[in-house]
Amino acid sequence: MNSNKVIYIMGVSGCGKSTIGQMLAKRFKIPFFDGDDFHPQSNIDKMSSGLPLNDADRLGWLQTLNELAKTELQKSSCVIVCSALKESYRTLLSKGVEDQTAWVHLVGSYNQIVERLNKRENHFMDSSLLQSQFDTLENPSNALEINIGLTPEEIVDKITKDIKMKSEFGLFGLGVMGKSLSRNLAQKGFNISVFNREVKGTEEDVAIHFKNSHKELDSAQAFSDIQGFVNSLQTPRRIMLMVNAGKITDYVIEDLIPFLSEGDILIDGGNSNYIKTKERYDYLKSKNIHFIGVGVSGGEQGALKGPSIMPGGNKEIYNLVKPYLESIAAKDDNNLPCCTYIGEEGSGHFVKMVHNGIEYVEMQLLAEVFTILKTMGKTPDEVADILESWKPKADSYLLGITVDILRKKDGNDWLINKIVDKAGNKGTGNWTTIAAAQLGAPSTLIASALFARYTSFYKDERLQASINLNINPSILNLEIEDVCNAYQFARIINHYQGLKLISEAGKSYGWHLNLSEIARIWTNGCIIKSDFMVELIPVLKEDDNILKNKLIINRVKALKPSINKVVSECVLKELTAPCLSESVNFLNAYATANSSANIIQAQRDYFGAHTYQRTDDNSGKFHHTNWN
Amino acid sequence: MNSNKVIYIMGVSGCGKSTIGQMLAKRFKIPFFDGDDFHPQSNIDKMSSGLPLNDADRLGWLQTLNELAKTELQKSSCVIVCSALKESYRTLLSKGVEDQTAWVHLVGSYNQIVERLNKRENHFMDSSLLQSQFDTLENPSNALEINIGLTPEEIVDKITKDIKMKSEFGLFGLGVMGKSLSRNLAQKGFNISVFNREVKGTEEDVAIHFKNSHKELDSAQAFSDIQGFVNSLQTPRRIMLMVNAGKITDYVIEDLIPFLSEGDILIDGGNSNYIKTKERYDYLKSKNIHFIGVGVSGGEQGALKGPSIMPGGNKEIYNLVKPYLESIAAKDDNNLPCCTYIGEEGSGHFVKMVHNGIEYVEMQLLAEVFTILKTMGKTPDEVADILESWKPKADSYLLGITVDILRKKDGNDWLINKIVDKAGNKGTGNWTTIAAAQLGAPSTLIASALFARYTSFYKDERLQASINLNINPSILNLEIEDVCNAYQFARIINHYQGLKLISEAGKSYGWHLNLSEIARIWTNGCIIKSDFMVELIPVLKEDDNILKNKLIINRVKALKPSINKVVSECVLKELTAPCLSESVNFLNAYATANSSANIIQAQRDYFGAHTYQRTDDNSGKFHHTNWN
Repeated sequence: MNSNKVIYIMGVSGCGKSTIGQMLAKRFKIPFFDGDDFHPQSNIDKMSSGLPLNDADRLGWLQTLNELAKTELQKSSCVIVCSALKESYRTLLSKGVEDQTAWVHLVGSYNQIVERLNKRENHFMDSSLLQSQFDTLENPSNALEINIGLTPEEIVDKITKDIKMKSEFGLFGLGVMGKSLSRNLAQKGFNISVFNREVKGTEEDVAIHFKNSHKELDSAQAFSDIQGFVNSLQTPRRIMLMVNAGKITDYVIEDLIPFLSEGDILIDGGNSNYIKTKERYDYLKSKNIHFIGVGVSGGEQGALKGPSIMPGGNKEIYNLVKPYLESIAAKDDNNLPCCTYIGEEGSGHFVKMVHNGIEYVEMQLLAEVFTILKTMGKTPDEVADILESWKPKADSYLLGITVDILRKKDGNDWLINKIVDKAGNKGTGNWTTIAAAQLGAPSTLIASALFARYTSFYKDERLQASINLNINPSILNLEIEDVCNAYQFARIINHYQGLKLISEAGKSYGWHLNLSEIARIWTNGCIIKSDFMVELIPVLKEDDNILKNKLIINRVKALKPSINKVVSECVLKELTAPCLSESVNFLNAYATANSSANIIQAQRDYFGAHTYQRTDDNSGKFHHTNWN
Repeated sequence: MNSNKVIYIMGVSGCGKSTIGQMLAKRFKIPFFDGDDFHPQSNIDKMSSGLPLNDADRLGWLQTLNELAKTELQKSSCVIVCSALKESYRTLLSKGVEDQTAWVHLVGSYNQIVERLNKRENHFMDSSLLQSQFDTLENPSNALEINIGLTPEEIVDKITKDIKMKSEFGLFGLGVMGKSLSRNLAQKGFNISVFNREVKGTEEDVAIHFKNSHKELDSAQAFSDIQGFVNSLQTPRRIMLMVNAGKITDYVIEDLIPFLSEGDILIDGGNSNYIKTKERYDYLKSKNIHFIGVGVSGGEQGALKGPSIMPGGNKEIYNLVKPYLESIAAKDDNNLPCCTYIGEEGSGHFVKMVHNGIEYVEMQLLAEVFTILKTMGKTPDEVADILESWKPKADSYLLGITVDILRKKDGNDWLINKIVDKAGNKGTGNWTTIAAAQLGAPSTLIASALFARYTSFYKDERLQASINLNINPSILNLEIEDVCNAYQFARIINHYQGLKLISEAGKSYGWHLNLSEIARIWTNGCIIKSDFMVELIPVLKEDDNILKNKLIINRVKALKPSINKVVSECVLKELTAPCLSESVNFLNAYATANSSANIIQAQRDYFGAHTYQRTDDNSGKFHHTNWN
């Protein structure tokens, strides 16, 4: 038995069954059927001529409706409207699907009904038949009874509240992100179930408290037991996991499996490692459970108001969850959702991981710019004003929040001056660096930004070294415009490298990626949204390599003298600027026709007989020399 | 039954049993026993008085020798000398160890023996007893018979050749490194067995051809079947695997397991990933097989003449293979072996991996120096002369080979100009970068050197970019002395970072590492041996962090202006120098008391509520601000 439900709306003719049934179906997003549409012509003729149907007339019709219910229940829940006045009719209607049947009885007095029927047009039943209906009615014992004196909305609310209808989407894990996504889904009108575990003393009644504190969650169902949560969902179930990435994800999957059915869909919305996502995909496939790994960026606010969503997995299965993910995603400049099918299993989390790698660099570049401007004698407010003035040229979410940050006061000082300079990390920058090393892609800026955080963590060593080595950056001889240009230059290299890494992964893993689409869904909802990202959408339609684009090439050329000046001045005056520095070193290496790697090949051949290729031998043959 | 062997040297008195037995035991490095030393006093008295022993006299004595053989066989092979003239004596002597007994019968004529006995002094047997011996002798059917007319050396050679004695050490896999290590072991006088698989068409008779082409392998045993190879080894067996790191290592281990006994020792001398080594250690432990992961550096020549050896595993087990590894290792300035117990499982391969990471950087720095000097207008020969002149200040193996490389001609040109500038890699630089990312250690130079190789591989993109971006480094305005100083500076940072990574790994994995010892075994035999490494031995006795050492600090300070000049000039003139550049950026960051990481912490708190610590709150509490 699956967990779908047939809701029969019953009652005498004229009680409003069709209106309520249609509204209810709309509310639950399930099919609606009017029983009267399934009468054989003989029955219609009889009723039109004012004759009541007898039980023999009804038998075939009721069986047809029962078949209809059974067929629909294979696929989904549904609403069927039918007077169903006698217990024997209802027995026929629910035959074989008793456990999946819910009865709603719309109750009114004879006068209420007559008044209604008299207002109605085009109805084939004469009101003279009404009394016979009341005479026939056997009140059901297992129905939800609702008086038709209420407004239709009130009636539907009552039904929604009383009949524990299967939800269409489940959210597992109500941390910051899980809560925001749940509210976002509910605000979009989806019927959801939410789950949070119960841990005495630390996590008590999280789900129910959460439901009760937000109006939009009125019709949501809250659980702290897994079985109840799973059983509250329509099949195939759509369950989004919002739990801490890592082992927890595996534990949660194991906890869920016993209650899942074949064809159910698990959606991992955590920051999982893409290699794990591939492994989980295969593991769950062996159990006929579908798995979609979804990168979600935007933090708490993004998750609530519209994040950028990067789903990877089987495309057909993705289509079953697409309406939910697209509805809650941020919208781009053309009002398209910042959610697109990325590619095969693991690709969604890979792309999210690189998103975070690019983010690391964007943050580090702003930190370096701040240090440079500070060393030029600017206060945080002055730096904020300068960054603000760069918005027309280089606006981004991260630039914007950095302006806010620099302006924040704490007593007589700026808050930024009170913050300990040890930068944390939660793994994605580290994973991106590892992926770059594994895939053979020179993501030098991401590695630099990661290592800059690591170096910052050696606070005690740094303090001692600052005394021992006595390095004190002196005033920098720079124009602010050069700093702005250098910043823009490094951001181009950052985006080149990040996108290149994604492109290389696509080739290695056989994913079919559309980098322009990836840039598009990064134009809103996520941490690295920026004006530059918008510019990259058409650029990436031409080629995955943005450094082949004429406009970008010209911009790089124009900005180059500035980054040369800024980086060399920083080095001379002993101010560290690892990402800016790496960006210019990378471009210089990247634009070198004949590099010094021939020395390395010769050395490798010398001590390890690793061989080398020759410039005058196009056959690709490998040569070895006895060097000494 | 273990695979040890007792060799009985038999024959009439005066045939030279003791001499031959002692020489043989020395050749095989196994214990020697003279049966006569085990006679009870009653027998000695009888013989001294000229009376022959009867079989009753001999019974207890023969049983004593049989017990001796059994006891010794538990531990090792041995040689026992005993006349053993009758078949019944021999049956007693070999009782219960028949399959482990080998008989060598030294045969001479009556006259040959008399002549000898007359020359002998201090022997308690009268020559008058000799005829009775000849009368008693029952020629054995299962003995190796050797005429005593040969020289003792010839006799021992014959025995060694004929009796397949168990080898003390096995070498599995005869690639470049396996062959060199085998010859090295044989040259040191060890009895070894060597194995290479048989692959029709590509690897045929490798082991036997190898044995036959080197004089020192005369007494080595060559195999192409695993069972024969394993059975040829003394227990506990010591088998060194010299196969391609990766899956092959696992396959080979699986192939070996069925033939191994509890307590046998596998030594993986390949460039295995240290995490795999830890896994294999645990796996084999579950089968009561010991596993030692050994890093070996030095290439083909080093392996033959003395490599640097980095073993990790259980220390007691290491002690069982220590004599072999120490004998074949290179020797340091004090003639101590460049082989030391590194630490617990995985540590040997970890240290070897970082060795290779440091090597990547040393190679890249020389490549950068070459490019700088080339851009200053120098020919390869002139650069070679300059590097040669740096030897008093900065000599290293890699500097030396680079000089050789630069001087090598190819027709009218230098060979270096004919080598394609795409640098390969075999994984260890990549693993080191990954380990650094995982362990939170800022190994920026290793990552830079790795990524420089990756960038070099984008040859087609580089050619296109060189046209599009038109970057042509102009003449550098630098003194050669500054380049030399910059090179030395970057090497200090490289060694700091590499050793720091090892130190961090030691803390993370609970290894007990001695970095000074590690530097010591890197002073010879390996690719990164250098004068600076010798200097680091005492420095690392003080602290794992070489940047705390006064001498190093002073040197860094003295060299700093030069690296500032060189790197800033390279940036200004658009010449890439990623490792030099990263070295100065790292030191500037490392010596920064208050870094810009506070900006990053503020940003993380802004968009992700990741919290931060405050400079005015020493409690370590984490704070959160509502920023906007």
